[in-house]
Order: sequence, then C-alpha cells, then structure tokens
Amino acid sequence: MERPRRIVVIGGVAGGATAASKARRCCPEAEIEIYDQDEFISYAGCGLPYFIGGHSPNWRRLLARLPEEFESRQNIRVFLRHRVNEIDPENRRVRVADLEGVSESSISYDRLIIATGAAPFVPPISGRELEGVFVLRSLTHALEMKSFIDLRAPHRAVIVGGGAIGLEMCEALRLLGMEVHLVEMADHVLPPLDADLARKLGEHLEANGVTLHLGAGVEGILGSGGAVAGVAAGGGELEADMVLLSIGIRPVSELAARAGIELGARNAIRVDGAMRTNLPDILACGDCAVTRHLVSGRETWVPLGSTARKQGRAAAETASGGEGSFPGVLGTFVLKAFEMTAGKTGLSEAEAREAGFQAGSVTLEDSVLPGYYRGGGRMTARVTVEEKTGRVLGAQVVGDFPSVAERRLDVLAVCVAAGLTASDLSSLDLAYAPPYSRPVDIPIVAGNLAEARVLGRECACDLEGLE
Amino acid sequence: MERPRRIVVIGGVAGGATAASKARRCCPEAEIEIYDQDEFISYAGCGLPYFIGGHSPNWRRLLARLPEEFESRQNIRVFLRHRVNEIDPENRRVRVADLEGVSESSISYDRLIIATGAAPFVPPISGRELEGVFVLRSLTHALEMKSFIDLRAPHRAVIVGGGAIGLEMCEALRLLGMEVHLVEMADHVLPPLDADLARKLGEHLEANGVTLHLGAGVEGILGSGGAVAGVAAGGGELEADMVLLSIGIRPVSELAARAGIELGARNAIRVDGAMRTNLPDILACGDCAVTRHLVSGRETWVPLGSTARKQGRAAAETASGGEGSFPGVLGTFVLKAFEMTAGKTGLSEAEAREAGFQAGSVTLEDSVLPGYYRGGGRMTARVTVEEKTGRVLGAQVVGDFPSVAERRLDVLAVCVAAGLTASDLSSLDLAYAPPYSRPVDIPIVAGNLAEARVLGRECACDLEGLE
Repeated sequence: MERPRRIVVIGGVAGGATAASKARRCCPEAEIEIYDQDEFISYAGCGLPYFIGGHSPNWRRLLARLPEEFESRQNIRVFLRHRVNEIDPENRRVRVADLEGVSESSISYDRLIIATGAAPFVPPISGRELEGVFVLRSLTHALEMKSFIDLRAPHRAVIVGGGAIGLEMCEALRLLGMEVHLVEMADHVLPPLDADLARKLGEHLEANGVTLHLGAGVEGILGSGGAVAGVAAGGGELEADMVLLSIGIRPVSELAARAGIELGARNAIRVDGAMRTNLPDILACGDCAVTRHLVSGRETWVPLGSTARKQGRAAAETASGGEGSFPGVLGTFVLKAFEMTAGKTGLSEAEAREAGFQAGSVTLEDSVLPGYYRGGGRMTARVTVEEKTGRVLGAQVVGDFPSVAERRLDVLAVCVAAGLTASDLSSLDLAYAPPYSRPVDIPIVAGNLAEARVLGRECACDLEGLE
Repeated sequence: MERPRRIVVIGGVAGGATAASKARRCCPEAEIEIYDQDEFISYAGCGLPYFIGGHSPNWRRLLARLPEEFESRQNIRVFLRHRVNEIDPENRRVRVADLEGVSESSISYDRLIIATGAAPFVPPISGRELEGVFVLRSLTHALEMKSFIDLRAPHRAVIVGGGAIGLEMCEALRLLGMEVHLVEMADHVLPPLDADLARKLGEHLEANGVTLHLGAGVEGILGSGGAVAGVAAGGGELEADMVLLSIGIRPVSELAARAGIELGARNAIRVDGAMRTNLPDILACGDCAVTRHLVSGRETWVPLGSTARKQGRAAAETASGGEGSFPGVLGTFVLKAFEMTAGKTGLSEAEAREAGFQAGSVTLEDSVLPGYYRGGGRMTARVTVEEKTGRVLGAQVVGDFPSVAERRLDVLAVCVAAGLTASDLSSLDLAYAPPYSRPVDIPIVAGNLAEARVLGRECACDLEGLE
C-alpha cells in the first residue's frame, strides 16, 4: 500500500488513540483525524473502578492525553461528540454527524481505522431505565455513577455479573462503605476460571463483606418513584439503592456491518493479522475486532485494553503502507479483588479438550517465599499441558495479593506463547533470592509435577525439600 | 545404566540434599547415604543474611530438613562431620574420615554423586586470622558471626566485596544498627551488572547509610590484641570492629580432581547434560559442577541454589538408571538491597559481543503502574538483542522493590530461554490490570524499542500514550 494522505480513525479510546499516535509517527505528513461520539477520548477505561472506589480520586488523571495535546503535539485533529453514521467504501468517505449541532458532513479517507470498541450488554429486563441503575464502560458512565454516589449516598448496591468489572466494583463499593450483593448466573464468580479456583476468590469476597448470590439470574429491577429499589434475582428480592449491570459487553460493529464489512467471532469485525478488514483500505482494531487465539488457532474475541493498544499499533503500521502484525492472544487476564489476585492465560483443561487437545492439569498450592522468610503469601497455580507432547497450553492462578501471582502467570504466559513443554518449565532459570521466591519457583515445580503426573515420567517429584 | 543398589552422595546442602531425595523417589530399594563434613545439611544458604539481619531470627527455620527426617521419612542415612578423603573409582569406593572420632572407613558405591559445593575465596592478605574477620557461606559461619555480633556488639563493619552476599549483608548489618563500609575492587557494585545500572544501586546503598569505597583493593586487615581493628584498603585505613570477606567463592573440586575427574570452567567439575563426570558411575551437581550457558553455548560456572537443586534432580535421575537432563543456565539472578531490586538474565551487551554476537541494547526507565494508580514504583530495564535476528540475548533490571522488577526479569528470562525475538516481545500477551502494570508492560515496550532502535524498523515507538 502506498502512503496515505488522510487517515481517519473512528473511536479514540485505547485502540483508536494508539492507532492515531502510531500513524503519526509512521506518516509525518498525513492528515490524521479521530472521530468519537463521546466527550472523552484516550482515557484509561480499566481505571474506572479505582476512580469510583477512591483509590484514584482525580478522574482527570485517567486521561492519558487531552484532545488538545493530540492536536498540539502530534497534529492529530480530534472531533469529540461526532458520530460516524455511515461508511461509504466505494468512495472512501464517511458521513459524520456533529452531535452538538445539527450538521452532518461527508469526510474522505485514504485509510479508515475502525476502533469503535465495545458497549455494555443490557438484557431486556424491566426497570433498567430506573434512576440508580448503571453500566460502567466509559468515563461518562463513571462520572455519572460517581455523581450519583456523592449525591445520594446509596447504602446497598447490587452488582449483576461476576466478571472482572463486577469483581473490581465489589471492592470499589465496599471501600465506599456500601453493603454489596453480587448476583452471578454461573455457579461461581469469574466464569473463565475453573470453579474450584474461582471459589477461593468467592470466599475472599465474602470474607470482605460481599454477599454472593450464585446461580441466580436477574428477573427484573424494581423501582419506587422512578428510582431503583431492588433487584428480583434467583427467585428472591434484594433491596438496592444502586444497581450495576456488568453482565458483559458486545463489540460495536453495526456501522461496519452496514458497510459490508465482514464480522467474525461474537459479531466482532473480522480482521487478518495485519488488522485489515475484508474491504480495501479499511482496518479495525481494539475491542470491536476479532483476534486469533494462539493456542486453539481459532478466531476469538477477547476485548482487553492491553490487546487494543497492540492491535492499534499494528493497524497504524498497515494503514501507513507497511505491514503491521498482531499474531493473536492467549486470553491472558489478571484482576485484583480486595487482597487477592486471580488470573489466567491460554486454555483451561476443559477448553483445551473442547479445542481438540488431549490435556491434563496439575495444581499446586504453596507459599511463594521460603518458610523462614517473613512476608509473601500463598498462591495456587494450575497448569494445563498437552498429554502427547507436554506442551503447556494454559495456566490459572489464584493467590494472596502479596504472593505476586501475576509474576508466575506471566512466566507461564510466555511459556504458552513460545510453545514450551513441561520439561522446559522444569529447567527454567528464573530469578531467585529469598525475598522473591523459593529456590524452585512454582512454574518449575509445576513443570516437574506435570512431567510426572500428566506425562507419566517415572520419578514423581514432591514439594518437600525444595526449600 | 542398571538400577544401583548403593548411592553415595558427598555433600548435603542444596544439590546433594535434592539429589538424595530424588534418588529415593526413583530408587525405592536402594541404600542411599549422604556424607557431609559440616554439622548441618539441607539448610537454606541463601537465607543466612536474613538470619543475621534479624528478618529470619530463628536459625532452625533455615533447616529445610533435619538429618533424622532424612532417615525416618526417606530412609536416607546421613553422616555428619564425615569427610570423604579419597575416591577410588577403580573399586567404586570412597574413604571416609569421621571428624569426631579417629576412624576412617572405606565405603562402596554403585553410583557416586559429588555435591561438595563451593567455598569462600580468601586472598592471602595479612590479618585474615584475626578475631572478628568472617566469611559467610555455611550455617556454621553464620552462627559464628551472629554469636560474635551478640557478644561484642560491633559498631563498625567493613564488607569486602560488592557481590550479592556483600550487598545483602550491607542491608543486614545496617538493620542491626552498624556503620557499614563496602569495599569493592571494581568501579561499581555488583560487577555482573552494567556500570550505569549498578550505580543506581550504589546510590541507593549510600542513601541507606552504606559508605562505598569503589575501585579499592584490600591491602591487609589490621589488628589489635588479636582482634580486628581496621582494614587497609585503597591506600587508606578504615576502622572496623568486624570484617566480612565476601570476595567470591571457588568450587570445591580437589577431591574429585585427585581421583582423576576432569575439571572445567573455573576448576569446577566437568559434567555433561545428564550430570555425568568423565568417570563411570560418578556424577556431580550443584556449586562444585560446571554448567552450560544457554545463550553463549559455553561451559560456565554459575553457583546458585536454584540451579543446584535442578542439577541435583537431574543427577539423581541419571544415577538411578534414567537419563536426567539439565540443559543449562542463563545466569539469572536477582537480589534485594534495602528497598531496591537488581537482577540480570542472559548476556549483557559487552558479554554478547565477547561471545561473538552483534548485539545492541535498549534501556527504558518508567513507572510500572499507570500514573493514576497509587503505589508501584519505578524500574529500569535494559534488553540486549542480536542485531541480525532480533533474538533477545539478555536483560538487566534495577528498580524500587515495589516495582516488582523481578516479574519483568522473569518474563525476559523465559524469552531468552525460548529464543524469542524483539518482535515476539512486542506482541506478548502479559497479565494486565491497573494494580499490576501499565497496559503495555515494560517487556513489550522494550520489544517495540528494540525493533525500532536496534533492528532499525521504520516506525519508532515512544512511551507516550501507552497509558
């Protein structure tokens, strides 16, 4: 592709903001414009629970870059409160409505980068329009919720959905002194995690004053005088002054679909490894786009801020006439809930089987530091390997926050990405000193265990004597 | 090799204790015996500075397993205060002296595992026999030092040698309230680290009350009435009530050499990847044995407790009639000094060039958490890559303890081990949430930077906007 004169980016949060910035570095001469229907761009969406909970009280600090900084520092024009209503691929134009005025205009592009993100899924239940019922996705949502909390001082909150946002918000609202109820349809919180591991997290939530309602669907939201008063869930009624619906999100892909752009997994925009859609000169990145799962090889949709930025970078390189590359994801995630860390990378054993692997897992729970060294904490790691080859397919961790479980998760994520085996794990040369780990750290022990138990190598290893 | 009836292990700290335990699991029927000239085995040598500094005040907790536990739980006979004086490979026997009595006996083996470890190097300087002059390698050394400190309450300590033990002991002795002087021959502490990175650590030591004497050799130790009074170093004199010589260690390999066992790098016992020496049925593991550097491919000697255990395991598998495997090391290390972490894996740029690589490095210093999220800390990472291929050859980190620099070091260690490139780094799917990292974590940014600056890919990446 030749160098573009005009690059138009739709959406300016994580993927879009990164794409625009990277495009500027690749194409110093091009006109670059961001259109976003919201009043904020380039903010830290993942920081919203910490703003609400008071850990990060100044919401302006969530803004990575102000629109005027895009303009003054990078010569990127930003159009806030502008919605793109139509893409015209034939003529390489988009139709844009100024939401503050009445004007609609037609804008040309040489390359179009779609970064429309994802939007909260709100099921068609009664009462969802009541005052005090929230979703939390954008900074605008967060400011609305914070303002409500400041003005109304709600006592009882019901959070519907026990995914990452729901769990982070349990902590945030407890920090604000509320009584918090968490309603989750599955029989455990954090459904991507194996049930027994997720239960450890659930117990920790309960120990921190969160009342769990598991296996409970929401039947409706109850109101009184236009404001929320409760939630009908699991056959009972929960009183509530405030409700957060964190059931899930969906890719914002209707605009693209209407223009003839192909959708893929979960109705996200289908892109190749260079972030190209099926239409020439149109790319997509971030939470609106699919990606590839590096273990299963399948197209998947894993909307995460860290992935969005890498995709944005690749989209910009391709849009600039190069060949960007984003090979895919492992679905790695981590979250903190109170003083516990939980995370996952790659496939669980059930997912591995579903993807056609013969797989087995080993689980170990241990203190991360030597017994004589004060501090640290305990963590549980589960590592899933392919039975035939010993290849590490995935891992899950749950641990005390001071256990630095995320470190072991990252080690295992790199092992999965690199196609390492249990045997490779067992000879890893990881960083050891008593303030950081035991001499034989958890990923290495997991490798030993997996060799013995899953691959059936002769000599079993135990945890004794590894101090 | 057939299954052995008698396995004799010389030395029972890290490598030897692990080898004996693993051999028991592999050979439930064999007679297994450990001979050690010391009065303690199976203790955490890396924990000694924390015992002395008071972080781990109970020295018995440093004992991973007591001799009677080896006997009662694993049927491994332990002979303390027994020194092996001779190996007779022809007849597969060792001659053992009981240091408590006068007896010497001849013991047969089917397999012999040498795990004699390493011993402190003490240069031939005057005054080294004075009271108050210490080395720190064994638990016995630590108990002697602790007893001296308790009885004499020394005010001024001089530590000679700014390697890991020297630096950890700076912290330990400062915690005990002493005035601490560190004498190091090189022009920076922690010589394996690049000078500019090590200087950050040096500044941190100084900020914590350690007086550095760099580029200073020790000319002699000065005494008064049989006790230490000072150190002549770098042309001056330092007063001292106590001196720690932590200049380095040497493999204990004379016994092996006398038996005709081949030595290798740094006079450590030469072993193959299954921990076999050149003589039949004789293996070696731990700090007395060489290993292979996985990046340079060269034979090397990197004595570390974590490596010793992995080698012990492999030695036991081979000794048991299997084929143990320990591919080698990256020389990974990490240490904590006060509130700072420093570590390294693989080769520095200078080492890479010396090993025949065309190599370049990128360095980045940053906060590890998003700007809006309180906590975390700053760290510096340097990543060295091969210019032609982009392969990651090594990395160094220095950071505030709360930056969890060891996590990034471990990620990079796995990348080096797996032969990943800068481009692989830049698409790693690492665990992200605001309490743990910025969305684009340091190893990924390092990959982007290395692609741009070392490999000369067109679009440079900056750190802006990655929030």
